[in-house]
Amino acid sequence: MGQEIKRTDVNELGEFGLIRHLTSKFPIKNASTKKGIGDDAAVIDNGDKLTVISTDTLVEGIHFDMVYTPLKHLGYKAVVVNLSDIYAMNAKPRQITVSIALSNRYSVEALEELYDGIRTACEWYGVDLIGGDTTSSPKGLYISVTAIGQGEKDKLVYRDGANVGDILCCTGNFGSAYLGLQILEREKQLYLDNPKIKPDLEDAQYMIERQLKPEARKDFVEQFFPKAGLVPTSMIDVSDGLASELFHICTSSGVGAILEENGVSIHPKAEELAIKFNLDPITCALSGGEDYELLFTVKPEDLEKVRYMPDIYLCGEIIPAEEGVKLHTKGGNIHPLQAQGWQHFQS
Amino acid sequence: MGQEIKRTDVNELGEFGLIRHLTSKFPIKNASTKKGIGDDAAVIDNGDKLTVISTDTLVEGIHFDMVYTPLKHLGYKAVVVNLSDIYAMNAKPRQITVSIALSNRYSVEALEELYDGIRTACEWYGVDLIGGDTTSSPKGLYISVTAIGQGEKDKLVYRDGANVGDILCCTGNFGSAYLGLQILEREKQLYLDNPKIKPDLEDAQYMIERQLKPEARKDFVEQFFPKAGLVPTSMIDVSDGLASELFHICTSSGVGAILEENGVSIHPKAEELAIKFNLDPITCALSGGEDYELLFTVKPEDLEKVRYMPDIYLCGEIIPAEEGVKLHTKGGNIHPLQAQGWQHFQS
Repeated sequence: MGQEIKRTDVNELGEFGLIRHLTSKFPIKNASTKKGIGDDAAVIDNGDKLTVISTDTLVEGIHFDMVYTPLKHLGYKAVVVNLSDIYAMNAKPRQITVSIALSNRYSVEALEELYDGIRTACEWYGVDLIGGDTTSSPKGLYISVTAIGQGEKDKLVYRDGANVGDILCCTGNFGSAYLGLQILEREKQLYLDNPKIKPDLEDAQYMIERQLKPEARKDFVEQFFPKAGLVPTSMIDVSDGLASELFHICTSSGVGAILEENGVSIHPKAEELAIKFNLDPITCALSGGEDYELLFTVKPEDLEKVRYMPDIYLCGEIIPAEEGVKLHTKGGNIHPLQAQGWQHFQS
Repeated sequence: MGQEIKRTDVNELGEFGLIRHLTSKFPIKNASTKKGIGDDAAVIDNGDKLTVISTDTLVEGIHFDMVYTPLKHLGYKAVVVNLSDIYAMNAKPRQITVSIALSNRYSVEALEELYDGIRTACEWYGVDLIGGDTTSSPKGLYISVTAIGQGEKDKLVYRDGANVGDILCCTGNFGSAYLGLQILEREKQLYLDNPKIKPDLEDAQYMIERQLKPEARKDFVEQFFPKAGLVPTSMIDVSDGLASELFHICTSSGVGAILEENGVSIHPKAEELAIKFNLDPITCALSGGEDYELLFTVKPEDLEKVRYMPDIYLCGEIIPAEEGVKLHTKGGNIHPLQAQGWQHFQS
């Protein structure tokens, strides 16, 4: 109830700045805490294996819109976005806890649908739901998931291990989830203007699925990497946009990077849709976010290990920090890359 | 977006019924998951030691009222209520993650105050903040904390280990936090009716502190138990009210219990305040909740180990399930105990 003398708006710092600012004064006290804030997940040393922990919250009206989000998909997505963080450490997710706060406008049947999605994700990814709580909220739905994974000591991959000369790789394609969101938002507006209109989503199924029901790259971490005997030097999952994640790797590792536009895959349907929306496809791919693909670096001598992996793209190289983070466009130009992640706090 | 045919109100099932209902179809798949839903915390086997995980969410307007809750206290409490769950497993909390969703009516300075309380709790209890996220919310403040602890394989204590003949013990006193809430609510009403009125809180400092800034029983788990070489047979922390927690132990262990009113300590100031409010002090103690004391059972042969511990009360005995869960009043009557926990979903 104390008086506030100074009032700084949360927007002024931005999401990452805010977390850095708030958590800067928390020293690590326990020997078992191997890694705290600042990577995809925290790491706890339990003797034999390492425990990896990640937590993420989805908020109605901020991260999802109930008008076009089926609850089953929402439950699935809330789990997947957390598992993606565990995979980004090259660890295997094992358990999750789920905390839900919801207003009484949600029925038990609605909650069942949500848990149905959570269960489907648990089954597909082989994780156990081990706890959580359900409480009421004055307004809206909040889902906070904590994922717990297991990793081997010599195989965990952080953001800070990229070295000059390393090859930059990414999985899958980019921009589709963002374009899926654009089309859902457009259809919502059309529907609100005229509830009788029939939504035209035929050409957009792939993008809508990427937005509403994303998948984490279990295949790379549990199959392709171990089969090839590969341990990336650094890795991050792409939740906030490819460019923004590349900046995280570069800042943590103290390096620069050159990203090849040629190596950034965009789904043909997404490209079509972007153009239809008057958006630049590569901008959607670089800044769109919510792709949940993996961005990682490998040593030059590991090139042969990655070259023939399915659904992988070699998309650049790590360069000295002084040279910055740059984009080499298809047209042959080189210019500084812009990092534009999700800005939840900006209205 | 599917049609809802049946609509069951969340209130119909109650908080525990709801969680049971929603999580009943989640089989455990990983060998490392030693204990899932249904105790104070989940347990993961990491080889040498066990990892214990608990998560809890505090919601503005449901669990706290910003009119009388200083943000620093709120941050402290959000951590403590989770640590209490870890201690209730006879484990030591080591790390926490904190997820916050908040509306833009909160400033950075307000968040700093909140984190100040989180840090104070981390320092006092020796835990590390290792992750979490901060996101915006359309309305209100949500704090979800996950606590991670470490326990030894032969020393972890569950709810289900109570046996007939065991002695029932509890730490500290009960009902104060509930009465603290009553006085804060009363003063809020008086203030709203007439903002010029000066709050009269002199006699209620202790109860208000128990409500706004509770403590977890680190002393028992980290000092008294190991010093006495004691491992309780079952244990739970009292968040929902002493009676409700006793029912949890009895249901999980398949036993009954007789609770001695004489063994339930009530602070003299709390007793005074209850009477002033026309409330029955023992009802406040049994059903009030938020005391964060420990309720546990010990083997009869361990009586000497607990008898001289500080701030401990022998409060009954475990009896066969058929005999039920009963209260032996100071007046010498024996009657069935009523379990009345917090009913967040009831309006």
